[in-house]
Amino acid sequence: MAKTEFADIVCSIARTVGIVGERWTPLILRDLFLGITRFEDLRRDLGIASNVLADRLRTLRDNEIVEARVYQDNPVRTEYVLTERGRDLYPVLTMLLAWGDRWLSAPDGPPLHVVHRDCGHITEGVVVCHHCATPLTATNVTWHPGPGGRPGPGATLIGHHLTPLPDSSA
Amino acid sequence: MAKTEFADIVCSIARTVGIVGERWTPLILRDLFLGITRFEDLRRDLGIASNVLADRLRTLRDNEIVEARVYQDNPVRTEYVLTERGRDLYPVLTMLLAWGDRWLSAPDGPPLHVVHRDCGHITEGVVVCHHCATPLTATNVTWHPGPGGRPGPGATLIGHHLTPLPDSSA
Repeated sequence: MAKTEFADIVCSIARTVGIVGERWTPLILRDLFLGITRFEDLRRDLGIASNVLADRLRTLRDNEIVEARVYQDNPVRTEYVLTERGRDLYPVLTMLLAWGDRWLSAPDGPPLHVVHRDCGHITEGVVVCHHCATPLTATNVTWHPGPGGRPGPGATLIGHHLTPLPDSSA
Repeated sequence: MAKTEFADIVCSIARTVGIVGERWTPLILRDLFLGITRFEDLRRDLGIASNVLADRLRTLRDNEIVEARVYQDNPVRTEYVLTERGRDLYPVLTMLLAWGDRWLSAPDGPPLHVVHRDCGHITEGVVVCHHCATPLTATNVTWHPGPGGRPGPGATLIGHHLTPLPDSSA
């Protein structure tokens, strides 16, 4: 299956990973969030080849996650900034960071601290239900077919494992 | 840089992606959460080659995210189940799903609905601060060096973009 075909899998996880799951892309996004926005700075920070970085940035631009912005006219210099759609990936990075901090930190502790400005504390992200604001876990949710679901490569059998949505849910 | 070297990048996002960011792995995890747990079912659901699936499951077992469990003795049959560390990846998948639902759904709607059993509603995940329980976004947090941080490939310049942690944070 060619790389682009993740976009054709009828699954929101697959579609997302098909764009932002390319090798190095999560770290490019991390850098953009942290304020490393110029091509040469991204290349030096990550230690990757220019053609790899250019390819990943092209995918991000094609998918409207990143846009190029001119910050100097003479000579012309551009930087890469996250769009609204790109900034909305922050929760994904937050949870990747939290898992790595919990399970893969060296004995000396996490490489980075995140401070929540609104409360002033070092924070880690917790995923809660947008309706009742209590934590979502693998054991307190159930999965049901959505209107856009259908069987196909990458999701051939899932339908058999899902029960129809209870009438009372909304 | 060889694939395994993501584990050597001093960054919790890189370390996490180095394990669970391999091609197909997020969808294998999705299936395990949904209850598709046998090798042949995983292979059929995803439509991938047996050697690819075996390789990804080996990485997940080597990293204690998945374990094999015998569910039948004669003949011996095994299934793959998530460990505690593996189940703790549910928030990552939840946020990949939420982003894909928001930005990449077909016009007919999301392929899958998640119901939060505790409140009975269709839910989507929101990432909040574990301290004050209000949402974390890219614009209401700041990043600071952690005790395990140091410059190196994959995070060469980040230190220059971070300010020391304010004394008042804890």
